[in-house]
Amino acid sequence: MNLFSPCAKNAPKSGVYLIGAGPGAFDLITVRGAQILANANVVFCDALVDPKMLEWCPQAEIVLVGKRCGKYSTAQKFINRQLVLAAEKKDVIVRLKGGDPLIFGRANEEIDALKSANIYFEIVPGITTALAACAELKQPPTARNISRTLKITTLPSHLNYEDQDTQIYYMGREQLPQIAKEMIAQGYALSTPVCLVESVSLPHQRSFGTCLEELLHFQQENVFHEKKPVIVLIGEVYKNAADELTPLIPSLEQQVRAYIGN
Amino acid sequence: MNLFSPCAKNAPKSGVYLIGAGPGAFDLITVRGAQILANANVVFCDALVDPKMLEWCPQAEIVLVGKRCGKYSTAQKFINRQLVLAAEKKDVIVRLKGGDPLIFGRANEEIDALKSANIYFEIVPGITTALAACAELKQPPTARNISRTLKITTLPSHLNYEDQDTQIYYMGREQLPQIAKEMIAQGYALSTPVCLVESVSLPHQRSFGTCLEELLHFQQENVFHEKKPVIVLIGEVYKNAADELTPLIPSLEQQVRAYIGN
Repeated sequence: MNLFSPCAKNAPKSGVYLIGAGPGAFDLITVRGAQILANANVVFCDALVDPKMLEWCPQAEIVLVGKRCGKYSTAQKFINRQLVLAAEKKDVIVRLKGGDPLIFGRANEEIDALKSANIYFEIVPGITTALAACAELKQPPTARNISRTLKITTLPSHLNYEDQDTQIYYMGREQLPQIAKEMIAQGYALSTPVCLVESVSLPHQRSFGTCLEELLHFQQENVFHEKKPVIVLIGEVYKNAADELTPLIPSLEQQVRAYIGN
Repeated sequence: MNLFSPCAKNAPKSGVYLIGAGPGAFDLITVRGAQILANANVVFCDALVDPKMLEWCPQAEIVLVGKRCGKYSTAQKFINRQLVLAAEKKDVIVRLKGGDPLIFGRANEEIDALKSANIYFEIVPGITTALAACAELKQPPTARNISRTLKITTLPSHLNYEDQDTQIYYMGREQLPQIAKEMIAQGYALSTPVCLVESVSLPHQRSFGTCLEELLHFQQENVFHEKKPVIVLIGEVYKNAADELTPLIPSLEQQVRAYIGN
């Protein structure tokens, strides 16, 4: 069985490919993305991309240019320059980014650098973590009569609340109380359901349910793994999902039971 | 070269798989989606899914359950019942939906039906059309200092404008002047750039650039193909993209040139 058969196409054109690796699982990349990886000469790879993803491109030279939790362990300018230099020398260059390459990934700067250097490039979309998390929770982010709009963001907004927009925060783990504060100030109910999903789609994925009121006072130190990404899904649509998940803050009864070992 | 090799895994478990086909192109489905399709007994397929996508599952019985432009050519209740009946009889049942299965696809009703019937199901995310359109335009929907938030919606909202949110409308082609009117009322500038992409990622994809002011008076009859989906991307981030695309409304000079055949 050969997944390439229906799309037997020539090797990709020489140039740079910004490819979305998807949320983490190695089989949640697109067929096109995997196919280009299999033909790549050099792959510039994010720290957030699961190492198993590189099994798609055993032939390629791998350059790790990790960014993690907003910290730039490799300066963006350096990445841009490396992409251009590599493209001038080699055939098929991949810039593999976690999730979708255009969602909060500073792709703008890489695109500008490639345009300025007049280098051929394509963008291959990837499954963005917000939607992969919804798939894991089996809960669409919008629903008739509850929320017709999904907002994808990195920071609490200052919009006045009117519709029951669903909000999904990327890179929000460091600012959970602030997000809750802003949304409550906008008029969202204290009871608005919240789901938090760590390492979406990977074997060590963990999910927690809570509500805005609890998030307001939440200290994350002991809950999340230090270097794992967490996506934060907030809205009435997540009521059932949040109820069914592990509580983010265990009830007093649960804490007592844990204490007495029952 | 076998795309399955790095993810050699057993045939999928018996049950129903809601799979996102992605925006249209047959290779923009995920590897996991293609792999499950290749093992499917029955595939319930949307009208908006490109027929070439079915080359992933030549072995499967195909049931067309099309919805198109908001019209239900097959009642949702019928689909739900068919999914449950098929799952009770057969092994691997796929519900193949355009884009991502959880974005404006009425998946809620199918999920509820499957839960009620106690049928095992999984959701395989797909590339949602909004992000595939951004990839085609090579323009991220957010950018530092311009817009930090992306709103994905089907209807104009009544929020007060404050941030320069990027807005992407699904199924918006029938209500373009209304969308423009609402956004201008919210405080968006008349000059706010707009890109419209028809049949994203397919060979017959077409893209147009315009601005909110032009959209306000736009009569779509002669521009878009009757049955093709159009996605509408609005926000300052699209300025360069909108400028570089075919104008939605040709200038007087262009009209005169077309008239005199020059």
